[in-house]
Amino acid sequence: MRVYYSEHHRAHFPQGEISEGLMVTPFERPSRMEFILARLQERAFDDIMPPDPVDMAAVTALCDPGYLSFLQTAWDEWKAAGNAGELIATSYPVRGMQQSRPPLSIDGKAGYYCMAAETSITQGTWHAAQWSAACAQSAAAHVIGGADAAFALCRPPGHHAAADLYGGYCFLNNAALAAEQFRSHGAAKVAILDVDFHHGNGTQDIFYDRDDVLFASLHAAPEYEFPYFLGYADETGQGAGEGGNANYPMPPGTTYDVWQNALDTAIARIGAFEAEALIISLGVDAYKGDPISSFKLDSADFIDVGRRIARLGLPTVFCMEGGYAIDHVGINTVNVLEGFLNR
Amino acid sequence: MRVYYSEHHRAHFPQGEISEGLMVTPFERPSRMEFILARLQERAFDDIMPPDPVDMAAVTALCDPGYLSFLQTAWDEWKAAGNAGELIATSYPVRGMQQSRPPLSIDGKAGYYCMAAETSITQGTWHAAQWSAACAQSAAAHVIGGADAAFALCRPPGHHAAADLYGGYCFLNNAALAAEQFRSHGAAKVAILDVDFHHGNGTQDIFYDRDDVLFASLHAAPEYEFPYFLGYADETGQGAGEGGNANYPMPPGTTYDVWQNALDTAIARIGAFEAEALIISLGVDAYKGDPISSFKLDSADFIDVGRRIARLGLPTVFCMEGGYAIDHVGINTVNVLEGFLNR
Repeated sequence: MRVYYSEHHRAHFPQGEISEGLMVTPFERPSRMEFILARLQERAFDDIMPPDPVDMAAVTALCDPGYLSFLQTAWDEWKAAGNAGELIATSYPVRGMQQSRPPLSIDGKAGYYCMAAETSITQGTWHAAQWSAACAQSAAAHVIGGADAAFALCRPPGHHAAADLYGGYCFLNNAALAAEQFRSHGAAKVAILDVDFHHGNGTQDIFYDRDDVLFASLHAAPEYEFPYFLGYADETGQGAGEGGNANYPMPPGTTYDVWQNALDTAIARIGAFEAEALIISLGVDAYKGDPISSFKLDSADFIDVGRRIARLGLPTVFCMEGGYAIDHVGINTVNVLEGFLNR
Repeated sequence: MRVYYSEHHRAHFPQGEISEGLMVTPFERPSRMEFILARLQERAFDDIMPPDPVDMAAVTALCDPGYLSFLQTAWDEWKAAGNAGELIATSYPVRGMQQSRPPLSIDGKAGYYCMAAETSITQGTWHAAQWSAACAQSAAAHVIGGADAAFALCRPPGHHAAADLYGGYCFLNNAALAAEQFRSHGAAKVAILDVDFHHGNGTQDIFYDRDDVLFASLHAAPEYEFPYFLGYADETGQGAGEGGNANYPMPPGTTYDVWQNALDTAIARIGAFEAEALIISLGVDAYKGDPISSFKLDSADFIDVGRRIARLGLPTVFCMEGGYAIDHVGINTVNVLEGFLNR
């Protein structure tokens, strides 16, 4: 399986994340990629390519223009305003407040386009986000061109990013870009399966009113875990998209026997949808050792996950999402790929 | 003029505030009170009293029950969940997300009830917030009992707190509690004049659909300054409250000649409303030396502010809000009171 990976992810390396009320080194850090790359090489995934540069036309088609404009200039505006540290949004347009009036000052704009304060914007964030999207786009192109599957080793991740929101370490929705690419190259229907521990709120939001892209997500129940305000089972889509959104929230402490049943249900749902291509939002933070998650999957379970996904027999693009247990993120990620290949 | 002040404010002393992307000592700190007290004593305001304990029935009548329950147990839940630092909310229910489903975990709940991440909750926050509200309640009772005016030296401040939201250093809306107290003691109409540099979004939200409480606010334009998502001039009230909300947003750098014109307009508006009592949300961060604000009022201007407010001739309760230029917060605050007294 070909892997698309760009060293440019290193440009995004925030020094701070607010966690437990303290400023800590971010859990989503560049070394995650090193562990995944090392494991890929150890397991003879030798076809590792840099992606083509990002197709900005596709990004522009997916995202809100004001949001893209914000991402492009945020760091320069933040520094021009004299701010000492990294850009952390602090004020949010919550209920009862103006929902569609982006402020003009950079701290106001940041809050307007953000959904969570743990995510810092740095000098290299926009650069890295574009190259992360490029990995998803090149992987999609490779599969559209005839390959069975490809792995986009994206960083920063994407599934929390909506068309006009960043947060949860995400800026551009890589999985959504890949899905749209299949659509624009002739696939009538595309399915996105999100196995990250956290609900893919951004992906759901992007496709919520559409009937051509099914979004199915296995994740921790929003009552208990980030992103807290999306991911309920009764969010089933709206308008033309009614029935095209399938959430499988599970309580903290969920073990693989329960998780696997949800996976089988989601896979059956995708099969019935008659998708012509499949995007996997591949987070491996359902792992029992993840420092910010609470599911109990073991490393061996991820092999089984890949095997079950393969049963769909669909052209498949894997997009890297979360997974923060540094010493196991490589093993768990590659286990999914190997399970898929050894179907 | 009698002053109500409680030493219990010291229980709320967060060690950290996110500012400019860094964790800094909060601008809203206990020593603000010491400077105001010192200046009060220097200028012979000798009638400084501790308030009666908070009237929780009035607080309960004003606030969302889930929000009050959250405030009461937030710190214990935060520590029971094993969090190392102070409670800082990081995930927010912004547009496109669930607006009316409070999560069950403490970090989710905090985000649900918060509008800005600069505000930490600590062990003593709820205790201090109650005593701050008590100051406003005792000051209102004193004026209801016949005094011309009283000063509630509230800390933490209140005007950013809605019935179900904290943030901007605020937890309970002291000014709103004072206004409601006049209403429940026979005043048909009450006006709240907010002269803090920042828009009193919480107060506006509480009275937005009511015709018995006029809210008028002079503040920095939300396009440029906190709270960013409320405070526009076209927010004029709704339903029965249409016309009962008057915002006077002004650009960064506004000087007293412009500000004073807005004040006169607001005062005329209050006069025409035929209010029977007046609450002043007394922030003095319009001062030119304020570290987090951008207006250009000089200390002497605050005397004139008090003098103009006095022309309304209404029973008046001053509730302390913001003001972060430590070495001038006492002078500026007391200048307003002296201008009022020497009408």
